[in-house]
Parts: sequence; structure tokens; C-alpha cells
Amino acid sequence: MSDLALKARELDSGDQLADKRAEFVLDEVVYLDGNSLGALPAAVPGRVEDVVRRQWGELRIRSWDESGWWTAPERIGDRIAPLVGAAAGQIVVGDSTSVNVFKALVGAVRIAGEGRDEILVDATTFPTDGYLAGSAARMTGRTLRPVLPAQVPDALSDRTAAVLLNHVDYRTGRLHDLPSLTAAVRAAGAVSVWDLCHSAGALPVGLDEHGVDLAVGCTYKYLNGGPGSPAYLYVRGGLQDRFDSPLPGWNSHAEPFGMRGDYEPATGAVRGRVGTPDILSMLALEAALDVWEGVSIEAVRAKSLSLTDFFLECVAEYVPEGRVESLTPARHEERGSQVALRCSDAGEVMRQLVERGVVGDFRRPDVLRFGFTPLYVGFADVERAARVLGEILG
Amino acid sequence: MSDLALKARELDSGDQLADKRAEFVLDEVVYLDGNSLGALPAAVPGRVEDVVRRQWGELRIRSWDESGWWTAPERIGDRIAPLVGAAAGQIVVGDSTSVNVFKALVGAVRIAGEGRDEILVDATTFPTDGYLAGSAARMTGRTLRPVLPAQVPDALSDRTAAVLLNHVDYRTGRLHDLPSLTAAVRAAGAVSVWDLCHSAGALPVGLDEHGVDLAVGCTYKYLNGGPGSPAYLYVRGGLQDRFDSPLPGWNSHAEPFGMRGDYEPATGAVRGRVGTPDILSMLALEAALDVWEGVSIEAVRAKSLSLTDFFLECVAEYVPEGRVESLTPARHEERGSQVALRCSDAGEVMRQLVERGVVGDFRRPDVLRFGFTPLYVGFADVERAARVLGEILG
Repeated sequence: MSDLALKARELDSGDQLADKRAEFVLDEVVYLDGNSLGALPAAVPGRVEDVVRRQWGELRIRSWDESGWWTAPERIGDRIAPLVGAAAGQIVVGDSTSVNVFKALVGAVRIAGEGRDEILVDATTFPTDGYLAGSAARMTGRTLRPVLPAQVPDALSDRTAAVLLNHVDYRTGRLHDLPSLTAAVRAAGAVSVWDLCHSAGALPVGLDEHGVDLAVGCTYKYLNGGPGSPAYLYVRGGLQDRFDSPLPGWNSHAEPFGMRGDYEPATGAVRGRVGTPDILSMLALEAALDVWEGVSIEAVRAKSLSLTDFFLECVAEYVPEGRVESLTPARHEERGSQVALRCSDAGEVMRQLVERGVVGDFRRPDVLRFGFTPLYVGFADVERAARVLGEILG
Repeated sequence: MSDLALKARELDSGDQLADKRAEFVLDEVVYLDGNSLGALPAAVPGRVEDVVRRQWGELRIRSWDESGWWTAPERIGDRIAPLVGAAAGQIVVGDSTSVNVFKALVGAVRIAGEGRDEILVDATTFPTDGYLAGSAARMTGRTLRPVLPAQVPDALSDRTAAVLLNHVDYRTGRLHDLPSLTAAVRAAGAVSVWDLCHSAGALPVGLDEHGVDLAVGCTYKYLNGGPGSPAYLYVRGGLQDRFDSPLPGWNSHAEPFGMRGDYEPATGAVRGRVGTPDILSMLALEAALDVWEGVSIEAVRAKSLSLTDFFLECVAEYVPEGRVESLTPARHEERGSQVALRCSDAGEVMRQLVERGVVGDFRRPDVLRFGFTPLYVGFADVERAARVLGEILG
């Protein structure tokens, strides 16, 4: 057994989250794509079957009350809340991330008020955020200005209405400094909107602690909610009464069954709802969140950093020098829960990795992306992934 | 056996859709709320289990390609198309009805062009359509003008940008004249948007034939897709290139995996997509659509009218005169697939009906709403429902 294999064994034996792996459906594949689609939590199939066969099949319409369907968006929001450092009553689940980016950004611009005519958006963002920010700007008569996250403090001015940032960059895995950027946005009198897709469930976010104004995130990456499971919207408690949604569907009405012609928004997180929630996907997510029972996000973060540290160590050992270049920051303070390696023939390399049982993600044109989900990835997985990569590139 | 019970037996024996009932999970309850939540098609639980356990659990990320997840929105749209009289390539499934109303109406206003500053909306609409129309008007700088559907022809002018109408009124069950209203809207140079929630799957719509411009609809009523299953958007082929979505998410991009900073819309129905589709709900819907195999929508319509005719006949016989008043038009040309009865103590009456195994819907303040899904409601059900209602009101 090689030194690194021995080290992996040692790290695995000291892993306090190791038992969590049994709560997922996994096989012999090393699955390092949980930051694209989280693995299936073992509790989900049974729950979904109950939702379909009993709640829908037998109770039918009665389930909107009796099975808690109607209140699922805010109930599940409260389950996500502690994972992102939010007190209850501020998160609502529903719609896609893209739709929530639109809600959040238009809401932010309206909170900022008429005098501010500029929206700043992370120039390196996952594209959909930029596209929706463009639409939000167009439809609110603001100007969209893409800037690098590091340039945000300098770009802020009394013209800035809202700033849309990613907590972790989807491509490089860089973790941006949410506390200081949020403080800078606030100091400029602007409204902050954070996209947590690549951080929620992988590291502490501290929404309340750091005074974030609005946030959105998906639930199918580190939260393992399943393919296309609904996203969520966070509106800070103190701003909820000023949140003026561009998608004021009947689910966000103060009296949704009053069937009133006039729109009166509900108070609280419910104001972020739109139409009828997709119950199957939503309740699958609810079951998926059971795996967080007894898990502290700090422990997850500690293991995540150990995993990525160890992966970088193994890559340095196994992969011929110069063959790959890490785009992921070496400093822990700047690293999410993934490692992105630039590699000239990344597409072909990932194809071979998958063929050999190591599943990561290929990001055009030349990036190998490996996501490390601390709840089910172990150190032996990490060693094997790097070793196979080394064999392919050797 | 009473005369009406005998007649029910006779009608059931001549029912060419009678076999379809076996394709649904039903029990001894008379379920007349399929226009709120359709019953569970028997094929769904097994399909959902496969999607969860094998496609997600085993194939994981590979399913986006290998299990056809990525193309599900347009593939399932093409399954719905023949039911609403649309050729393939014009319908895409995803998001809630409310979100699609926003997409469709903003898209319609943009197609209409700058010179037209008014949006007409059905004043009797299901509220969410009105709320979203209000937001669409506000965000495009147009004026929203609620009018009764019958007044639309007079209200149209060269100021009219778009008109949002319901094919069937959710409360009264009135069927509006889609062909003539669409023609009037077109003649005025405006863009038509139809909400098909209460007609799709219950009667012929003829989107292509009648030259409808845009349409939206839900899939959990007569299409039996399950609680909160995704809605759909129809954009007439000839208008697709001019459809300019207010929610230009990455799924609507010409090159979604190009991760390009600039937005270039896809051609075709795909342009109506937004974010990552909720696969569990979407593939449950796909399985639910299997029940339409070999069913003509004309046969469904014929049975629907027989069912509502017979229900009205039974109510007239069993319910003391003056105790209820039908809000649903007597003329077939004006009737959807439901019967709405005004009844002073409707809430309490519906509670008793449900207790006695007849499930309908109570619409505040005073409406008993009974939906008739021709694929699984029989004439004996109808007779029993009216008889129990008569006993309660007797």
C-alpha cells in the first residue's frame, strides 16, 4: 500500500462524518460530481413512494392540508435555514434558481429605491445569473455592470442599487469573501444578493450574522434534493415588508384562497412564493434534508478542506508535473468544496475518468472539476481519483 | 333501482372511455375534483420509482443525457401538443402557471411593439393571472385594463398590446369562445394569450387552427400530472423568433453549455425554458400522459358534456327546487367540464359531501364546484353525487 493510500486510511478512520455515507445510495464509483447533482439519500425513495401512492393516490386533494403540501415551501425553507446561518421564517423554497435570481434582484432594486440606477453583477458568474440580471436591469430601467468580485468595493457608489455575487465560483471553486463584500455593499447603501448554489451545504454561510440582504440557491448540489429540485429565496427579516416581488403569484397573497382581484402580499417569507409548488420534487428534497440531522456545518467544512487538501496532495504526487494546473485557490479562506484543474485535453480526460469509475465534471473548454461532498466522499475515494487521473495523464 | 340509476347504468354501458378508468388509482370515493388535482394514473408510481432509484440513484449525473432529462421539457411539450391542437415544436413544459403567465404576457407585449400601451385581462380570471398581468404591465410600462371576456371585442383598439383570457372560467365553468375572441384580438393587431388550465384535456382547444399566439396551462388538472406538476408555454411557431423572454435563463440559451457571458436565445420552443427543470415532477407528468394513448379529445368532450348534462338532470331531480342555482351555462357551446352550483351554505355542504364520499371543491363564498374528468368519472358516480347532494340538502 502506498504512503498516500495509508494516509487515506488513517484520515478515513478519524473521519467523524464517515457514518453519513451509509445514508446515501452509492456504489463502487468515486462520485465527485455532487456539486452538479448530489447523490441519492437512502430515505428519499420510500418517502417519494409514500407521497405518490398515499398522499396523491389515496388522499388526493385532501393532501394539500392533511399532508402539509400547502405549507411545504416555508417549512422546508426552515429546514435549510440553519445550514446557511439563517433564523427561521426567512427562506422559502420553490421555482428554479434562475427564477429566484430574477425575484431577488428586482426585489433588491426596488428596495434600493429610485435614485440608484446601477446593478453590479459578478463578471465571472454562472451565466444564468448574468442573463437574469440583464433582464432585471432592463425591466427596472437600470444599467447592468459586470465586475470582478474583487473589484466590487471600488465599483460601488451612490448609483449602485444592487449587487449580485456568487459565494463560490462555479468554475474555479474560489470562495469569495461574503462578510467583507456584504459589509461594503451595505456601507454603500446598496442591497446585496448572494447566490449560494456552490456553498450551501458545503461550508458555513452565516446569512444573518453577516447581514446579507437577499440570497438564492439551488438544492440539488450539496443539499442532495434531486435533479432540478426547487431552489430557495432568502429575504432578510428586516427587509421582508419592503420586498416587492416581480412575480406576485397567488401563493404569495395574504389571503390566497380569498380569490381576490386585488393583490395584497403576505407577510414574511411566504411573500417569495409564486405559483403552486411542485410537490413531488419538493417533498423529495424534504426527505433528503434528513441526512443533516446531527451534522454541524462546521464539521462539514473541516472535512471538506481536508478532502480538497488531500486531493491536491495526491494530484501533486500522482500527476506528472505541468500536466494540470489548479485553478482553485490554495488558501483555505478562498476555497470552496471543489478542485478545478486546468488540463488541455480535459474533455477526453474526463471521459476516461468516468470510464474508469471516477465521475467528475468537464467544464469547457479545459477544466476538470471535482466536487467533494463531505457527507459521502471519503479519503480513499480521493486517493483513488487522483491515482486514476495520474494513470490517465502519466 | 331509480330511473336515474337505471339511466346511469345504461350510459355507463355505452361509454367508450369506460376502460380508461382502470388506468387510474381510484377507490369508492366519487372524485369530482379532478379539475383541482387529477387522480393518480396507475403508471406513475412505477415510473417515478425508476426515476428516483435508477436514473438518479444509479446513473446520477449521467441521466441528464442517458435518461433524457435534459430534453424532457420539449419532449413532454410535444406529448401535450396534440391534446391542445398544436403541432410539435411549439410547447415547452416547466415552471408554474403563474411564471408562464408572466413569460407569455411580457413576451406578447414585446411582440406587439412600442406603440401599444394597454393590456386587457379577463376581469373574472383566476386571481394569479391578474396579479401577474399587473406585474407584466408595471414592468413593461403598460396599463392593465380588466374587462369581462364578452366585452373584449369592444375594448380592443390600436392601443391594445396583448389580451390575456381564460378558455374556461375556473369558478363558473363557462367556456369562452376562443376562436372568435382570438380572431378579434388578431384583427385589432394585438397578441392573444390564453390560459388553458381548465380546458386542456377536457375539450378540444385548437391552438393552431384558431391562430392563438401564446398560451399557458397547468398539467395537474385534466392532465393528471400530480400536485404542482410543471405548467407549459405555447408560442405559435411563426412568433417564436420574436419571443423575447423576461426570464432568459441558461436553459433557453442557444448554447447552454457554452457558458457564454452573452445571451443568445435558442430557436424554437426551447426559448421558453428558464432554469433547470424539476425532473421528478416532470417525469411523473410524462408517465401520466400515457393514459391518452388512443384517446381522441373529441370523444373526451362528448363524454364530458354527457356527464355534466346528466349531473344537471340528476340535480334537478334530487335537489329541492331553489336550494341550488347553476352558474354553469346550459348551452354546450358555453360549458367547460365542470358544474358550479351556488348554494348559500356551500362550505358546510361540501364538508358533508366529502364526509359521505363525494369529493368536490368549495369556492368561497358560496360555490360548490364539481369537475368531471371523462377518463375516470362514470355516470353512476354522477348519479350518486347528485343523490347524496340531494340527501344533504333535502
